[in-house]
Amino acid sequence: MRSILILGAGRSASSLIKYLVDHAQHEQWTIVVADREVQHAASLLKGASDVAKAMALDATNAEARSAEIAKHDLVISMLPAFMHMDVVKDCIRLKKHVLTPSYVPDAMWPLDAEAKAAGLVLLNELGLDPGIDHMSAMRIIDRIKKDGGSFDAFESYCGGLVAPESDTNSWGYKFSWNPRNVILAGQGGSAKYIDQGITRYIPYNKLFQRTVNVSVPGFGAFDGYANRDSLKYRSHYGLDGIPTLKRGTLRKAGFCIAWDTFVQLGCTDDSFIMELGATATWADYVNAFLPPDAGRSTRLNLAYYLNLDPQGGIMQKLDELGLFGEEPIGRSGLSPAGLLQHLLEQRWKLMPTDKDLVVMWHRFVYTNAGKQHELHASLTAIGQDQTYTAMAKTVGLPVAIAAKLVLNGRITKRGVLMPLDAEIYDPILDELEQHGIVFSETAAR
Amino acid sequence: MRSILILGAGRSASSLIKYLVDHAQHEQWTIVVADREVQHAASLLKGASDVAKAMALDATNAEARSAEIAKHDLVISMLPAFMHMDVVKDCIRLKKHVLTPSYVPDAMWPLDAEAKAAGLVLLNELGLDPGIDHMSAMRIIDRIKKDGGSFDAFESYCGGLVAPESDTNSWGYKFSWNPRNVILAGQGGSAKYIDQGITRYIPYNKLFQRTVNVSVPGFGAFDGYANRDSLKYRSHYGLDGIPTLKRGTLRKAGFCIAWDTFVQLGCTDDSFIMELGATATWADYVNAFLPPDAGRSTRLNLAYYLNLDPQGGIMQKLDELGLFGEEPIGRSGLSPAGLLQHLLEQRWKLMPTDKDLVVMWHRFVYTNAGKQHELHASLTAIGQDQTYTAMAKTVGLPVAIAAKLVLNGRITKRGVLMPLDAEIYDPILDELEQHGIVFSETAAR
Repeated sequence: MRSILILGAGRSASSLIKYLVDHAQHEQWTIVVADREVQHAASLLKGASDVAKAMALDATNAEARSAEIAKHDLVISMLPAFMHMDVVKDCIRLKKHVLTPSYVPDAMWPLDAEAKAAGLVLLNELGLDPGIDHMSAMRIIDRIKKDGGSFDAFESYCGGLVAPESDTNSWGYKFSWNPRNVILAGQGGSAKYIDQGITRYIPYNKLFQRTVNVSVPGFGAFDGYANRDSLKYRSHYGLDGIPTLKRGTLRKAGFCIAWDTFVQLGCTDDSFIMELGATATWADYVNAFLPPDAGRSTRLNLAYYLNLDPQGGIMQKLDELGLFGEEPIGRSGLSPAGLLQHLLEQRWKLMPTDKDLVVMWHRFVYTNAGKQHELHASLTAIGQDQTYTAMAKTVGLPVAIAAKLVLNGRITKRGVLMPLDAEIYDPILDELEQHGIVFSETAAR
Repeated sequence: MRSILILGAGRSASSLIKYLVDHAQHEQWTIVVADREVQHAASLLKGASDVAKAMALDATNAEARSAEIAKHDLVISMLPAFMHMDVVKDCIRLKKHVLTPSYVPDAMWPLDAEAKAAGLVLLNELGLDPGIDHMSAMRIIDRIKKDGGSFDAFESYCGGLVAPESDTNSWGYKFSWNPRNVILAGQGGSAKYIDQGITRYIPYNKLFQRTVNVSVPGFGAFDGYANRDSLKYRSHYGLDGIPTLKRGTLRKAGFCIAWDTFVQLGCTDDSFIMELGATATWADYVNAFLPPDAGRSTRLNLAYYLNLDPQGGIMQKLDELGLFGEEPIGRSGLSPAGLLQHLLEQRWKLMPTDKDLVVMWHRFVYTNAGKQHELHASLTAIGQDQTYTAMAKTVGLPVAIAAKLVLNGRITKRGVLMPLDAEIYDPILDELEQHGIVFSETAAR
């Protein structure tokens, strides 16, 4: 028997846990799911008490955490990203392999030599983005390189959205992920990418205007807005000389230019508490970001201020949110961003019968034997229900499959790892296909 | 004999030191000017060795600093603002009065009781802005209140600019103050003010668009852009119920909308190092903030991107800076803001024969006996030369006069103070008039 410890049973742990439980008997695993809220962990284990158990654990309690880690062969940290380093340090000390779906923190790289010396796998970025993005891109990059191709451009976009059958608002968006991250997306500096050899920067106030049109077969048109640092993986992907490299986030077409209204108004500012009376309405909220109205209604004042067509699609999207109405806000002591989140959590809530959608889209331009080719690869996944969402599947299954590979000795690399090598990405992508997570490729020219 | 210690002999200390030296014999003062660079301190003391001496002191050296403070009766800290707290703590421990031209840091207020108990004056915000703004406003506010008036609006703007006779560029601006602060002005959150009872917020990306026109007799038209928190002094000024309160910074008319170009492009971002080749030109710098050019020149691409008239005043201002030329940047490893500063320090340098200009403008609207009145008060001061600038005069003289008042027992208040009371502002404003720093008032209705 091998023993697996899962730390954290949050939103994205459901499919991970299901996979591990489903494979526990065959693989001879025992599983412990540890969460601050034991009943939440238990609810994801229903009826699997022979192979898996839930336990209450406050992972910030260093003593309790390392005592539990010591009992297992492999640790999966699904905790908030800032807690991974504590777990990883325990795992090195206690000689345990550890997997996370999250970005490699800068502080982890210095542990690489020690982990290698101890023969440990510290495998990160195993989720959707980062995760499946790396694996699917590297499989194609390695294949094209092996065939003798050289790259002219690579663009990659990913989004967590709402399934077409559950898409009931004009924004084409519901929250399948941390709402706060959606509200604050793009803040804190300019986005960086490279286009035909020129490094270009997009400040926050232009980020949702300078979008790319992405069309995904069967799912229509999307906007892609640039991620903070598109060049982060340039070397990791072996694309150091590539003239065009761009990574971004997908929203339904039309979302971004409407979202830009909030950016321009200042509604996404999280740096101060708004002064609004206890009986303030959403129209009062909007009005606070406008110049005095010169007798116009708040709605027309906004349209005039931002030069928007009062009858156009952007204003209709704002109307739909009730931003100009007399509905009371009902909250105080929050920042503009906090209040906007409060509104949108009501309006963009994924309802019990709603399904979410994950979309990933890659575009490769490469030259082989003097001829330029363009290849698109896209993944779409629709959730099963509110527990087994497409987001939970695409984040959790790669982690689960990686756990199997590590425990079965199928991964030979050691140290701080990302899923960039064929020995990791090939078996994961192959098995993901059995779960319906399949990329389809189209030669565009 | 009373002894005065001046910590820091930077840009704004010249007029302060001159005043103290000029009055030393009559007032029976001895003066020590301590600076990390003793020769700089000495240069401001030329020929005054009987009453004043310069010394080398690294004010970050706690032992040396407090040893020197112990020898004096009053300390004036002209150090960078972040160093005031260390000085103030020494002064409380050693029972010395202390003056600064800077904002009261939040950390100083808890020392109020201790300072009061020790009979000490901790008098801050004695410069121009903050400083003369408080004094001149409070004198008028107190007078109007005493006459039975109540306030409907108060707006106050201040700027450090270039004198008309030295104004040789189309921006109407040269650096008479810390260039970095000019480049980064307005960043880090939204500006807040109140207009007709409604608290309004302006995000950075609209700050230089939503300006106020200010006309100063004899000096023409200015733009006023809003300060971060116009409401900071609402209570201190006794204006808690005022429906309109706005504070801002002045630039020559036309400056702000042209400066907004840099904001919209992202050129004022200080959060990352730009990737530009060693031979990059200013046109390359601009190009990095633009979308691909579709065959247009960088200049036309920018005009197209930001919807500017290619022949208009904004583009002419950018042309004047050489932003579209092939001149090499000559620096690397800097942020966008750092590179912009590098450019503007060359273009907007105050030349040896240039004179600077300080402008302050207040607008009061008040009601007395059922009748509404509007009063404008303005101050303009032109510098003497590069040492005795208008900025140095208006920052340093109020500090110097306050030092005299404290040493002569003319200030009865104790603890953490700002110059908001008549016993402080009246003698300072009266004496400033003898130095040509005079407000002129106009009844606008």
